[in-house]
Amino acid sequence: MSEITIKDVAKRCGVGVSTVSRAINNHPDINPATKQMIMDVIQESGYIPNNSARNLKRADAKSIAVLIKGIANPFFSKMIKIIEEETQKKHYSMELRHVESYEDEVDIALELVKEKRLRGIIFLGGYFSHSEEKLEKLEVPFVFGTVGAPPENISRASYSDVAVDDLKESKKMTEYLIQLGHKDIAILAPEPGDLSIGKLRLEGYSQALTKHGIGMKEGLVRKIDDVADTYSMENGYRITKQLIESGEHFTAIYAIADSLAIGAMRALKDAGFRVPEDISVAGYDGIELGDYVVPRLTTLRQPVEEMAKETIKLLFRIISGKERHQHIVYAGELIEKESTARLEK
Amino acid sequence: MSEITIKDVAKRCGVGVSTVSRAINNHPDINPATKQMIMDVIQESGYIPNNSARNLKRADAKSIAVLIKGIANPFFSKMIKIIEEETQKKHYSMELRHVESYEDEVDIALELVKEKRLRGIIFLGGYFSHSEEKLEKLEVPFVFGTVGAPPENISRASYSDVAVDDLKESKKMTEYLIQLGHKDIAILAPEPGDLSIGKLRLEGYSQALTKHGIGMKEGLVRKIDDVADTYSMENGYRITKQLIESGEHFTAIYAIADSLAIGAMRALKDAGFRVPEDISVAGYDGIELGDYVVPRLTTLRQPVEEMAKETIKLLFRIISGKERHQHIVYAGELIEKESTARLEK
Repeated sequence: MSEITIKDVAKRCGVGVSTVSRAINNHPDINPATKQMIMDVIQESGYIPNNSARNLKRADAKSIAVLIKGIANPFFSKMIKIIEEETQKKHYSMELRHVESYEDEVDIALELVKEKRLRGIIFLGGYFSHSEEKLEKLEVPFVFGTVGAPPENISRASYSDVAVDDLKESKKMTEYLIQLGHKDIAILAPEPGDLSIGKLRLEGYSQALTKHGIGMKEGLVRKIDDVADTYSMENGYRITKQLIESGEHFTAIYAIADSLAIGAMRALKDAGFRVPEDISVAGYDGIELGDYVVPRLTTLRQPVEEMAKETIKLLFRIISGKERHQHIVYAGELIEKESTARLEK
Repeated sequence: MSEITIKDVAKRCGVGVSTVSRAINNHPDINPATKQMIMDVIQESGYIPNNSARNLKRADAKSIAVLIKGIANPFFSKMIKIIEEETQKKHYSMELRHVESYEDEVDIALELVKEKRLRGIIFLGGYFSHSEEKLEKLEVPFVFGTVGAPPENISRASYSDVAVDDLKESKKMTEYLIQLGHKDIAILAPEPGDLSIGKLRLEGYSQALTKHGIGMKEGLVRKIDDVADTYSMENGYRITKQLIESGEHFTAIYAIADSLAIGAMRALKDAGFRVPEDISVAGYDGIELGDYVVPRLTTLRQPVEEMAKETIKLLFRIISGKERHQHIVYAGELIEKESTARLEK
């Protein structure tokens, strides 16, 4: 059954949803004629404003919590939005918590579960360095989204996760650059202590080089040294600038996140290099921004919408007791745009 | 007194803060030698890991809530980070809530105040269309950050706000373009129902044109028609494409948000225009991204760090009873970068 939504009403009226909301909520700041027109359309369409119902429910609503490391990362912004939409459909409320990079998200989760309304937790970003013992103390179901592979000492029966195979996808991207003729491929790599997706992406790069008989040069592995905001354009810019100034020879840069790659492209431009004519640049993630920069960024797209939807739906299936813990792996997609080119000899 | 932080320890050890955190928290996934080195530095430096203290506190911590419309806007990501840092210094916890564009943030706040621990609320983004009566029902102090001017029927004694003078600053940017010789200045403008900062920025544009005897051309006022994600690159791209296809003559585009401007630059590039040689583009906000795109974006910088700090500090001053409601206006700064140029006759 297709239900009429506030968006449909807005579309029919040719106004924004916020304007419809103002009409419904008797806000003082709306043109009376516009309001009348909207209320007429609402009556005709059979749309039932569910504000009152929703508000009544909210007081004792069940809730889920989303704990996120790296809130500035556009990749997560997109996931949060989708998770929230799905949560609302289930009439749950969602609590969003930002976790500092040095904080332990499971410790924070252990505090949150003291709230009676909490029914489930989603962890986004960060490291998977939690002991099984600690995870068992969490008395509500939880799902790790895009956190990377866990250490081997944790039973796969104790958690769920939804992710791409970061090692495999990263290897794919590195091999793509190799097939374009590049051998001196610099990598904007994770900080030395990274045990999560960063480590896997670096490992994929390393395996691709080895497979094609290319030695890994220390000088081309440029590690992020400021982890306050790991995957930032600023880090990408700064590390690339250092790489250029080091005098190391390279013809391509592979950044383990699109935001780093965008910083790298700007640093190359400032140093007088053309992308991709002089240097190819490839990223990872497939964030929207990569399609707006000049040149458009070649990237490894994670299917963020599908992953976010599956993360929240899986959580609800576990909450309802319909399912045990799952480990869902999505395929990434290499998207060739304008920032990479065949190496001219 | 300067206190030693976890960041100082990380710096001295040459590792990331997350690695220091793993050492302190006895995580299994850390190299034993690294861990010993970190623990040695901690002992020498006199740094006291306050994790245990903080966790004990969290269970009965007082909290503040941040309600945000437009979580994908990078401008707000930055504000949230700063607000959270200041909140932690006060040993409060912070709850972040995303508000859909059609939801009423004061309704949501009225639900949140039922939680006993909540001591104050910050509203970021959205419209200021709340009745005084409704605001009075909020039994905790609150501050509006960057929400724009309230309607005149609300007493200034009933709320606090921290913002720039959007009308004045927008007028400044438009006059800057006029002084470069531009007369046919298109504006990427707010949706017709916008009563907040968007409306003020459009009004500033209009006043500048009038002051310089330039008639406002309807065809150059391109309104956002998709308010689901108002200030998005996608909207900037789409609206600019429509503007180009309309055949209207223009030599400059003023976008009321940087994200819109970045979408506009990409649309111009795709249509074969050079920025700024053929078309000048100016934005508003001063987000970090504007410094990474090619060409760098001319913008009206809001002092986001100072505004965020003042917003949270003001809230704490009101909570502590030291102050009544305040209305703080920050000056914006016009930053001339590479995307605008004098009009060649």
